Order: sequence, then C-alpha cells, then structure tokens
Amino acid sequence: MTTPFSNPLRDPRDKRLPRIAGPSGIVIFGVTGDLSRKKLMPAIYDLANRGLLPPGFSLVGFARRDWGHEDFGQVVHDAVKQYARTPFSEEVWRHLAEGFRFVQGTFDDDLAFDQLAHTLSDLDQVRGTGGNHAFYLSIPPGAFPTVLKQLKRAGLCEQRDNEWRRVVIEKPFGHDLQSAQQLNALVGEVFPAESVFRIDHYLGKETVQNLLALRFANQLYEPIWNSHYVDHVQITQAEDIGVGGRAGYYDGIGAARDVIQNHLLQLLALTAMEEPVSFDPTNLRREKVKALSAVVLPKDLDAGTARGQYAAGWQGGAKVLGYLEEEGIDPASTTETYAAVKLLVDTRRWAGVPFYLRTGKRLGKRVSEIAVVFKRAPHLPFSQTDTEELGSNALVIRVQPDEGITLRFGSKVPGPAMEVRDVSMDFSYGQSFTEASPEAYERLILDVLLGEPSLFPQDEEVELSWKILDPIEKAWARNGAQPEPYSSGTWGPASADAMMARDGRVWRRP
Amino acid sequence: MTTPFSNPLRDPRDKRLPRIAGPSGIVIFGVTGDLSRKKLMPAIYDLANRGLLPPGFSLVGFARRDWGHEDFGQVVHDAVKQYARTPFSEEVWRHLAEGFRFVQGTFDDDLAFDQLAHTLSDLDQVRGTGGNHAFYLSIPPGAFPTVLKQLKRAGLCEQRDNEWRRVVIEKPFGHDLQSAQQLNALVGEVFPAESVFRIDHYLGKETVQNLLALRFANQLYEPIWNSHYVDHVQITQAEDIGVGGRAGYYDGIGAARDVIQNHLLQLLALTAMEEPVSFDPTNLRREKVKALSAVVLPKDLDAGTARGQYAAGWQGGAKVLGYLEEEGIDPASTTETYAAVKLLVDTRRWAGVPFYLRTGKRLGKRVSEIAVVFKRAPHLPFSQTDTEELGSNALVIRVQPDEGITLRFGSKVPGPAMEVRDVSMDFSYGQSFTEASPEAYERLILDVLLGEPSLFPQDEEVELSWKILDPIEKAWARNGAQPEPYSSGTWGPASADAMMARDGRVWRRP
Repeated sequence: MTTPFSNPLRDPRDKRLPRIAGPSGIVIFGVTGDLSRKKLMPAIYDLANRGLLPPGFSLVGFARRDWGHEDFGQVVHDAVKQYARTPFSEEVWRHLAEGFRFVQGTFDDDLAFDQLAHTLSDLDQVRGTGGNHAFYLSIPPGAFPTVLKQLKRAGLCEQRDNEWRRVVIEKPFGHDLQSAQQLNALVGEVFPAESVFRIDHYLGKETVQNLLALRFANQLYEPIWNSHYVDHVQITQAEDIGVGGRAGYYDGIGAARDVIQNHLLQLLALTAMEEPVSFDPTNLRREKVKALSAVVLPKDLDAGTARGQYAAGWQGGAKVLGYLEEEGIDPASTTETYAAVKLLVDTRRWAGVPFYLRTGKRLGKRVSEIAVVFKRAPHLPFSQTDTEELGSNALVIRVQPDEGITLRFGSKVPGPAMEVRDVSMDFSYGQSFTEASPEAYERLILDVLLGEPSLFPQDEEVELSWKILDPIEKAWARNGAQPEPYSSGTWGPASADAMMARDGRVWRRP
Repeated sequence: MTTPFSNPLRDPRDKRLPRIAGPSGIVIFGVTGDLSRKKLMPAIYDLANRGLLPPGFSLVGFARRDWGHEDFGQVVHDAVKQYARTPFSEEVWRHLAEGFRFVQGTFDDDLAFDQLAHTLSDLDQVRGTGGNHAFYLSIPPGAFPTVLKQLKRAGLCEQRDNEWRRVVIEKPFGHDLQSAQQLNALVGEVFPAESVFRIDHYLGKETVQNLLALRFANQLYEPIWNSHYVDHVQITQAEDIGVGGRAGYYDGIGAARDVIQNHLLQLLALTAMEEPVSFDPTNLRREKVKALSAVVLPKDLDAGTARGQYAAGWQGGAKVLGYLEEEGIDPASTTETYAAVKLLVDTRRWAGVPFYLRTGKRLGKRVSEIAVVFKRAPHLPFSQTDTEELGSNALVIRVQPDEGITLRFGSKVPGPAMEVRDVSMDFSYGQSFTEASPEAYERLILDVLLGEPSLFPQDEEVELSWKILDPIEKAWARNGAQPEPYSSGTWGPASADAMMARDGRVWRRP
C-alpha cells in the first residue's frame, strides 16, 4: 500500500528515499493560540502534502473552547488556507482531516484528560496510530506542571513495547538556571530524556543547518575557521517589529532571555564547535555542549554588554510607539528590548576571538545573520593609498531573510593602479536550488515524529546557556537602571556602539 | 596648464591622481598590420580619451606603403572608429591627430631611418616630445635584427640625459631557448635591459592583475593556497576559432610555443609564486622567476603531455575545416593546435600539486581561466549517500570572457536530509565596478610610456619558460608523429583526457 500522501512536491531528480514518519499522531495543547494556527497546523498540512506523514496520521486539539470536531476542523482549514506554504489539495486535505479530533477541557480537568486517553486509544484502533503520540505543549510555562501531571495521571506518558510517547516544549525553558533546572526535573519525572523535544525553531532553519554543511563538507573554510585568521564573530537577530501581542509574556523577560539564551547561543555553538565525529545526535550534541561549556564572560560585564529599550520613532514610514507606551507594558518597565553581549570561547581554536551577540526589536531591519569577520592580511605589498578602501574579509551566513551566504573580500579596482576595494560574492538559496526550503516547523515536527533529536537542544545545553546568561542578568539587575533608550528604526543604543568601539570594532549594518 | 585630454571617463569618486604619461611619442613598425589597427591604434586613442596621454603625444607610423601623413591619419581614424572602446570625441581626435606622422620605407632602407630620426627630432621641437620615444616592433621576428641595427645606426636608441628610448617587442620571443637567448642578446646590444618591454597581453588583463590583489590583499585565500589544501591547478586558454589569418606564423610553431610558453606559464608563475615584499618590479619579478625556476617536468613526458590537431567539425552551427585543410597550412603539417602539459612546482608550498596547462584552437568555447581545485574535506561527518553529489571545492579566476571569480563549494540541499550538493558563488567584474576595465593594450602602452616594467616579462622569465618547454618540444619531435586529431568544437584529443584520468582527475568543462 502506498501512502495516500503521494509527494507531488518532491524533486523527481532526487533518487533517495524520503524520510516518512511511521504511524503516529500529535496532540496540541494550546491549539487555539497563535503559534498553533500560524505555524503548527500549516506545517502539518505541508508535511502531508509533501507525502511525509503516515496514512493514518492524527491531529488532536485540546483546549477550553466549546468546539466539536467540525469546529476544530474548520479552524485548521482556515489556518492552512492562510499560512500553508504548499498549494492546497482537496484530496490531501480530506484525508488529513479524517484524523482530526478535538478534546474540550481545562488543564486541571481530570475527565478531559481521561477523554483524551480514550480518544488516543480509539485513534490507535481506527486510524492505526499504533500508540505513538507526541504531546505538543504550546502553552505558557506556568501551565507545564499541571499538564505534565495530568499526562502522567491519565497514563498518557506510558510507553509500551514498540510504542512511543514524546513531549514537545516551546521556549522559554525557564527564566534562569534555577527555574530551568526545576523545569527539566519536572519534565524528567514524566518523560525520559530521549522523549523530550525542546523546540528552538532557529535550528530548524535551512541556513542554520547549512552552517554544518558549509563548515564540514568543504575543504575551504575549516582551515581559516580559527583564531589565527578570524578577528571576531558577530551574531545578530534583529527585528523591525515591536513587542506586539507578546507584551504579557515579554515584559519582565526581555531580549536577552527571549533570544540570546536560546537562538543566539545555539548559533554560537554551531559556529564555534569542533567537527563532530558524525552528525548523529550524540556526537553533535557533545560538540555543542563542549563549545557552550567553554564560553567565558568578559571580566567587566558593564563594558562587555549593552542593553536598550526602544523609544518612539519612525519605521517603514510610520510613526511607532515606544516600548513603555505599548499596550500591556508597565510604563515603568526596565525590561530591555535590545541586548548585546561579548563572549569568549576559551578553546585552543578560539582563544582571544570575541563573539558579539546582539538582538533587538524595532531595529533598522529584520535580519538574522552570522558574520565571521577575518583579520586583515598580515602584510600588504601594496602602496598605502591603494588599500585605503579595503575592509576586512567576512563570511556572512544570512539566516533570514534572503537566505544564503555572502563572502566579502578585496578586489582590484579596474584601472592602471593596483588599488583594491571590497567586493561581495553571493550564494542565494532561492536561486541555487529548485527544491523548496521546508519551513523550520515542518522540519522539526517531522523530526519529532521520526524520533530524530539532532536539532533539539538537550537539558544540558539549556542549563549551560542559562549559566552564561545568569551573571549578565544579575549584573543588569544590580545596576537596576532603566535600559538606554534608542529610537525605533535605528540600530540600538549608543552604548552598544561604544562597547564595540572600545574593542576597535564596529557592528555590521546588514 | 591642464592636459587637453581631460578625462570624462574617470570615476569622479576616485580622489587619487591618475598616472599620466609625460612628454613622449610612439613609433610603430608594422603599422599596417592587424595588431596595429585592431589593438594599438584604438588603445592609443582610448588612452588619449581617458586623459592619460601628454598634450604633445606623437604617433609615427613606419611602413612600406606609399602613404602621406593624411593617408596614415585616415587609417588610424578608421581603426579608432571601428575598434576603440571609448566614445569618439572630435576634439580629442583632432588634438591627437596633430601628432601623427608617417615615414615610408623598408627596414633595410638607411634613408628611411634617417628620415625617421629627422621626424622624431622635429617632433621634439614642435610637439615637445622631449626626446622620449618608444619603438613598437609589431613585425615578424625575422625582421628584428635589421630594424634593431637600423635604430642603432641612425642613433635612435641613444638616450641622452633626461630622455628615454624604449623598445617594445611582441611575442614570439624566440622559438626555443637558444633562439630566445640570441634574440635577447641582439636586443641587449642596442637597448639596455630596463628599456626593453616584452608584451604579454595576458598580463595587461584586469583579471590577471586581480589575481595578485585576490591573493595578497585578503586574509581568506593565502592560508589555503598550498599543497595542504590544493589538489591541483588547471590553467586553460581555449579558443573556438581556428588558425584563421595566422597560418603563416602558426604552422611549425604550434599551440605550446604560441600560448603555453608565454601566457600560461606567466599565469602559472602568478598563481604559484610566493608573496613579494612589494609589487615594485624588482620584487615582483624576483618571485615570478623563483616560481618558474622551480617548475619540474613530469618524468614520463609522453604520459604527462598531450597534443592534438583539429579536424573538420561543427562549431557555432557551421561546418568548419580541419587544420590540414586550412589555407596556408601544409597538408602534411605535424603542428599541434592543442597542447596540454602537466607541471610540478618544486617548492615547499606546492610539492606534489600538479599544475595542468592546456590550450587549443577550435575547442568547445572561448575561455581563459585559472582553476584552483581543492582537496576533498579530510573527514565527512555525513551519511555516505548524503555526499554523493559533492564535488571538490574550486576557486576559478575567469580571465576572459565574463571576467570574475567563481567559488564552488558544497551546500545543504533544502529538505529533511543533510544532503550536500555543489553550489557556486560568483563575483563579476562588470557587475561589481562602475569603472570601465581598460583594454590590456591600453594598460601596457601606458606602462611603456611611464617606464613601469612590472607587467612585462624580463629576459630571464622568457628564457626560463623556454627551458620548461624545450624538453617537451624535443620529446614531441622525437616521436615525430602526427598530433592526435580532435573534432572541431570538442574539448581536444582523447589523449588529453587520458592524461588526466591516469592521475584520477578530469578537465573542467568551463
């Protein structure tokens, strides 16, 4: 029997077998939320459309709403129509929708969880999901203990022979080391470590995974990927939007906990780590853990960090509010919306090479990138005036948008003098491949169903990341001051530029 | 006083002073030939148009034709109209043409050379050329002795204080080591070494000069520019045309003497050489000489070389003649129109890295390039099937056409597997610079007038190149056989592919 989700979107030149998930289903808690509608539901449809889901795949929504199965189906339908990346196919949809179920209830409602258990057991019978279920906790962290306890009470986390139960957790993975350890312990009581999948959607991005291909499939880069040749690394995640609808979560958390602790430190780990023996999860994780455990903070945390808070300004031709004027934000909030930190990686490879991490809202442009900036050539056999317009070589991995790689280097300016000037070479994912890039959530959900943990940070990585961030947060809390305001649409507070200037460097303007 | 050749074509952002030639003129022997009309006259006009010639610049034609100054002026005019690269300006032209003179005579005609001496002396008076004259020998090498003797007899090579006389020689610089040494001795009797400018127009090309900028202005490339990382280098000059009007010169000379001895070995020298202390002529030449003197031939010359002769075939949709059927070619000619050689550069940097040089007529495409092909990564942490479509990294300097640089490397194919495939990054001269690339002859003629010898091979380099080629030519002559035929429009004889296959490599198909 062939899967009814045939794969019209696969490249016919690809002779390799695709990795198709075995019999299974997903239960989403918090199914009425934004993440669920904008990312999870469309990703599940796209996976089905690409032929990567099993025939009897089931999707169970769990929420307080008084919905029937049909109401739930309609919500998924609307979400898919609006946000899916692949074309809508009635046939694929019809087959997928047969596996939809909705369970109504609150998290402290024993009966609802018993009903869930009954539903899953029924799906195993009628859809052949084979006892394999992933529980996606798309809910506030405060609700974790209740839901985990319910899953245990209702026997939903028991894995019989040849069955699996997995839990998927979205950040925040705590708000400091202690709370992260508590969370890990709590989850660990209910699910064994190999059944816990922490989503850092950055790791699902093609360009991030390509960093591994770039470094280790090639001969070109690895020889210069070290302190002999690299001057410093800049890792940037910049948003042009403000806090938007996330005010309730964001205020009191701030940019460093929201982005640096997870996304940027994971990018640092992938950039700085040694070559793993292989890309199997154990080997890959070992190298990431090693890199994270080698991270050292600057001695003077005031000089080596910067924090800011966006003020009113202009963005995209429109006047925008300052953070303190946003709906749902305490007008006296000291939460930072911009954070920059300088880190060192204390290994033989990276000794003395600073890694500058920055993230912020309401910055000049939406862009995420890793820029490896090289030292200047040690000797320039040119006349001095001929190299006046020569900058530093840089390799930039453009994570988003316009995914690809840029290499900046000096080239001779046409004409009778040996004058050099910086030029760029570009590799663009979109132009180089006919294959569509799967969305990060597609990749990650498929990996959950396949039990492939490579792209999910483990508890040790999460705790190491908090160990890096905690002293910074504490120093900021000690100072207690309001973060430095920066105008919306600019590139952050003056103190961030000053932090770089002290090192004789400048931030890139992507 | 400003020069009347103001410079409408200079980039206004360029704040540096252009290098403008001082008072001077050029005498062209063989002024009625193709090179003169297609390259030299247009280049002189373009230099004037760019404002790089002195106000009183003079151009003297010397030929057998019964022309007056006006006839000569008309010939230059037509050549400029047809072949110049910059727009035609009546004002620039009028001023330039005031310095045109024509001297009629044969090379053994004493009176004609006396007349030339008189003409130059007159130009010094009325145009202010200041006794500075370059003699461009655009003539068959057989005529060199006569012309040089005449220049000496007529006192034209005598350089008084603050005056200069220079001689410009086009290839062939001999046809083997002995004849090259004789030619160098002959020229040396008349002009001191620093007054001899040997034209290898490849060295005037922007992309060739950019090779120096690329290697030495950047941090990126030099660390991997050695035998640890480079597998081999391929240097290609491929023409799609046949012998054309050059039959008389070409037959009996062949591809190796015509292209490998000069262009390709110069490219090899620039690719293989160590970093010079500076780009001044002495330091640059020292490194090129060192590289050439380290070149070692393969032990088995039959296995390490290949030669071919084009047969009839199809090219650009048209049926074309074989070499032996071309007008002016001996139907029994054993001259090769394709030559490939494998060379080693016996230095610490390049030990064991083959440099494959090839050139040919009637090949698949007109292209000149230097391809540095890297070793595969020493370890691939991928599943084996994931790297099936991964080739070798390569850095390709595209000398012509479509001047630029291509970097080939492996990138992750979008999708759920960690599959890698080769992709390319491109840098294009035309797209990256608004400055127009001067034509090679422009650059080289200006350098002659400026007395800037960096881009002109010196006698030692010429003789070293013949030392490399002579044993190959002798081995081919001993074999005495007809070169292997190859169909026009293909990439050369089967023996050239076999030569690479024995080393486990393949020629690039540019």
